[in-house]
Amino acid sequence: MRVIYNEQMADLAHLLGEMAGLAGSAMERATQSLLQADLSLAEQVISEGDRIADMIIDAEERAFALLALQAPVAGDLRQVVSAIQIVNDVNRMGALALHVAKTTRRRHPNPALPESVHGYFAEMGRIAVSMGAGAKEVLETRDPKRAAQLNQDDEAMDDLHKHLFTLLMDRDWKDGVAAAVDVTLLGRYYERFADHAVEIGRRVIFLVTGVLPPDADPEPAV
Amino acid sequence: MRVIYNEQMADLAHLLGEMAGLAGSAMERATQSLLQADLSLAEQVISEGDRIADMIIDAEERAFALLALQAPVAGDLRQVVSAIQIVNDVNRMGALALHVAKTTRRRHPNPALPESVHGYFAEMGRIAVSMGAGAKEVLETRDPKRAAQLNQDDEAMDDLHKHLFTLLMDRDWKDGVAAAVDVTLLGRYYERFADHAVEIGRRVIFLVTGVLPPDADPEPAV
Repeated sequence: MRVIYNEQMADLAHLLGEMAGLAGSAMERATQSLLQADLSLAEQVISEGDRIADMIIDAEERAFALLALQAPVAGDLRQVVSAIQIVNDVNRMGALALHVAKTTRRRHPNPALPESVHGYFAEMGRIAVSMGAGAKEVLETRDPKRAAQLNQDDEAMDDLHKHLFTLLMDRDWKDGVAAAVDVTLLGRYYERFADHAVEIGRRVIFLVTGVLPPDADPEPAV
Repeated sequence: MRVIYNEQMADLAHLLGEMAGLAGSAMERATQSLLQADLSLAEQVISEGDRIADMIIDAEERAFALLALQAPVAGDLRQVVSAIQIVNDVNRMGALALHVAKTTRRRHPNPALPESVHGYFAEMGRIAVSMGAGAKEVLETRDPKRAAQLNQDDEAMDDLHKHLFTLLMDRDWKDGVAAAVDVTLLGRYYERFADHAVEIGRRVIFLVTGVLPPDADPEPAV
């Protein structure tokens, strides 16, 4: 039983890691589609959304089968329960990348982003991609140091998000209300993407060390 | 074992229902604080956030203990797994109500909402409260008809949300960029609150009927 459990749990962790990697890659291309108003790239990201959705169902079924057939206890059980919770986080990361791509598509052929905030989104995109890759690595290696590093990335994301809102709230904002609305939602998508990556890191740290790190503050930085 | 399982599962379902009810009540007072720029009401909602956070930990521990000590199988196991997923939804509902209250506090003594959208938020608040109560009822009665009704509430929420964005995107929007940014985020909080209530309904329908209803479209109605 124990050998089978270990093998199946490793497979499930690998699948979760793959999904986090896919969400990161989706966010990378979604960001590029946004910066370049590239419709075909946006469409590509959107059509790949079904693939992540199928993997979600697969992961949930595997976790259920592990519980039903292997009846794990103690630390093993905790691993499976964490996997069920992590599925939700990677699912949301994928959905948020799709939201970005859909914003590109909705505004096409106009760009959704005014030039004045390109630099912010290029950087928020870079951090999001790095966090997707970090979450994947953490899921596969269970390295608590790498998991803690996700918090630093998240702080950088929060700083950018705060600056972005300072720009939006400034009387000198010249790009009008409609662009401000898009920028507001887009900023929130990146910030939430980062929060979910941090949450994955927290759950892995808990599995390895038995201590759950303090919650990331999900309050928007407005 | 079976008797103990049934009792403990009923307790857990009751706790989840209570949390959904609290999230609905928090959203009710948060909405009122928003419409009346009432700081003390906002503070009350924010300080009660800790209570929901404690209940989340309690619910997660109970679900874990059920798996560890009762080793449920088949439908019983599915119930516990669903409970673990539902904990996340009620947690987010509570967090979103807090976001609304924090927006009131951030803008005080100014109102966060321009008069022009008061009617929208009064109605979105009313629907959110009804959905919180609906989610509570569904968790406690497991009535699939009541669960399906949450979809109708959600459609009404989506319609309001769409109209709200039409207003924001209109050249006639007179309330400036800063107010538009707040209204954009606030609208998203209500829409997401409704999505989580629908998600709870879907999971309960799945438990009772074995069929998972189609996913609510989480795409923002911009």
